[in-house]
Amino acid sequence: MNYRFSKTLGAFSSSAVREILKLTQGKSIISFAGGLPAEEFFPVEAVKEAIGRVMEGGKSALQYGLTEGYTPLRQSICNRMATKGMKVTPDDMLLTTGSQQSIDLLTRVYIDEGDVILVERPTYLAAIQVFQARGAKIVSVRSDRHGMDLEDLAVQIKQHRPKMVYVNPSFSNPAGRVWSLERRKGLLAACRQNDVLILEDDPYGELKFGTTEIMPSIFSLDQHPEGSCVVYTSTFSKIVAPALRTGWVMGDRAVIRNMAQAKQAADLHSSTLDQMTLHQLMEQFDMDAHIGLISVEYEKRMRTMVQVLQEKNWPGVHWNDPQGGMFLWLELPAHIDTQVLLAAAVQQGVAFVPGVSFFADEPERNTMRLNYTHAGEAEIRLGLDRLDAVLQPLLAAAPRV
Amino acid sequence: MNYRFSKTLGAFSSSAVREILKLTQGKSIISFAGGLPAEEFFPVEAVKEAIGRVMEGGKSALQYGLTEGYTPLRQSICNRMATKGMKVTPDDMLLTTGSQQSIDLLTRVYIDEGDVILVERPTYLAAIQVFQARGAKIVSVRSDRHGMDLEDLAVQIKQHRPKMVYVNPSFSNPAGRVWSLERRKGLLAACRQNDVLILEDDPYGELKFGTTEIMPSIFSLDQHPEGSCVVYTSTFSKIVAPALRTGWVMGDRAVIRNMAQAKQAADLHSSTLDQMTLHQLMEQFDMDAHIGLISVEYEKRMRTMVQVLQEKNWPGVHWNDPQGGMFLWLELPAHIDTQVLLAAAVQQGVAFVPGVSFFADEPERNTMRLNYTHAGEAEIRLGLDRLDAVLQPLLAAAPRV
Repeated sequence: MNYRFSKTLGAFSSSAVREILKLTQGKSIISFAGGLPAEEFFPVEAVKEAIGRVMEGGKSALQYGLTEGYTPLRQSICNRMATKGMKVTPDDMLLTTGSQQSIDLLTRVYIDEGDVILVERPTYLAAIQVFQARGAKIVSVRSDRHGMDLEDLAVQIKQHRPKMVYVNPSFSNPAGRVWSLERRKGLLAACRQNDVLILEDDPYGELKFGTTEIMPSIFSLDQHPEGSCVVYTSTFSKIVAPALRTGWVMGDRAVIRNMAQAKQAADLHSSTLDQMTLHQLMEQFDMDAHIGLISVEYEKRMRTMVQVLQEKNWPGVHWNDPQGGMFLWLELPAHIDTQVLLAAAVQQGVAFVPGVSFFADEPERNTMRLNYTHAGEAEIRLGLDRLDAVLQPLLAAAPRV
Repeated sequence: MNYRFSKTLGAFSSSAVREILKLTQGKSIISFAGGLPAEEFFPVEAVKEAIGRVMEGGKSALQYGLTEGYTPLRQSICNRMATKGMKVTPDDMLLTTGSQQSIDLLTRVYIDEGDVILVERPTYLAAIQVFQARGAKIVSVRSDRHGMDLEDLAVQIKQHRPKMVYVNPSFSNPAGRVWSLERRKGLLAACRQNDVLILEDDPYGELKFGTTEIMPSIFSLDQHPEGSCVVYTSTFSKIVAPALRTGWVMGDRAVIRNMAQAKQAADLHSSTLDQMTLHQLMEQFDMDAHIGLISVEYEKRMRTMVQVLQEKNWPGVHWNDPQGGMFLWLELPAHIDTQVLLAAAVQQGVAFVPGVSFFADEPERNTMRLNYTHAGEAEIRLGLDRLDAVLQPLLAAAPRV
């Protein structure tokens, strides 16, 4: 049999993160690669009790459900969103198999081959994959720690007439960036003026450290949901548990209805058991206290990682100062290619994600993403010791200038 | 905001089945529309116990998992497939959010706009939707109760040079057709000779009545899995419970690997809780006995429905004689449009799916699909009485010939 795969196949290159996840499964590698929450803080007992209550209902948890998702869970999420300044009803919302599916479904119903999508520099690698597979042209906008550069945004909008902008404005993946209020408003104004749809991806927004102020979502800054130029997505993956595979997406009813029809063709609906379990959790479990607890623990781990990095004192290595989220973003001396470094690091028993995957164009090959939420503090020290062992010779070999 | 949706959006017209499902939710309508299993036979206690065992493991059920799916479940399915003459390993298999997602993922990695896909007459409506959304050209092959007409198949292959054939060879949706061994082998030979990929969709194959012989799958008739021109998909939706949203797809490793990469972009992976629960069920629950039990019950309901239809003795109305599966396929007199009939029927408190949705081209508007697995025997009688009330006037108005 001579297989004749689709021409778009090349876009589905497996993500480095996932391939490394596979390599490291069951081995004694310390992984700073995946964006994995810490298992030890999963609310296992609360989930068990929630499932118990769901299964008391019995049969209804096992039958086909609505494509839009379990209505009581949509209502609970609406109640939570209202406390964050986002006023939506269940009809403005679709439940998805994680926010990854929200990105995919919106791309299916909104983007055609050749359409331009603007993204941050750097941006979430699996969003790049979805956009590429659809045949979109992806253009990076110059970005700093406060968000996209509004001047460059204006230039790119004028030059490329984009159909969509994809942003991750709170504790971004991978750069840990928090967009300032000014940049949020600036993006919104520019997009509204030019009929550019904003996909606001917010999986990390609740994982804030210390007294960090939570910025209003871009969705909440726009008229919404009717006629909004923002589609907002988030997920339970980081605040409860990823395996429950439940995200949500909210926006204008026409957008949501079209996405629901695409979902119907894609998989009919997501797991009812997961959705009902999350509904029980939202009703009977103190979600805010739990999020507070994991945020405190994640901040501790981040501080441990930063402290060890400071002790290592690698010349020419810089990193961000996360106020929340799951990642440190490192910039190394220009002559170090982190993809080459990774091969050596895995041999030494430590993994990370090379920065190259997070750029839609002109990659900065001397960057890397370190996750600080999954490994415990002792593992963080040991992992960085291992990284040190492979990095030191490369740093010593720096070209003299 | 002026939304600019994708040009392919029209393809995602909501399926009639799902829209009717929504209309009928919580109302006293008797629905023969959806392909719903009977809730009263869901193995609720066994599922509860399985979940209990999963949750004893605790944390591991809640973390991110492999895109390919939970390996022990893949292994259990391989063991089951081996008893049906299909010898595959977990590496030849991907777990999906139901077999609907298998259809979608294969279409994404194998089909480009303008490619031709051959289908049966009639065929599964939600497969048509997926193919249309991808911009494929869908061509029907003349079909009878034994499968596709091999002569017409040869003509269509020569004329259209199709890339793929989609078939539902055992107790098909909607026509309840079982392909003969000769047709299975004929399709395989023609496709192998012309490098046409076969997507064999087999959600109902195990739901056989009485002493009906189970036909070998087309996949098992081919060399497999390496180099097979067949990709085979099935699901737990009909034999355990749909809400657990777990299907599987098997084929050549290159095909499966590409589909896994597409799945990574689509939703990272399916629910781990559902997959682990099904693994526990497969290990500790007598699946064959359960399938035997529901098949007996479904046959009883089918016979009740057929008996009532015989009593009604509607002139010019014919139906198939199901040997398994979930559907009766009715042909009415040519002047009756079942879409018009449905509107009246829903007013009367009964629903079905008009046949038009199951044709890729040249629809036979005087056909309808009746599900006999969801409603109990008393409901079947009452539902057909209601249908009788709206159908009789139309039958009486038949044009004299």
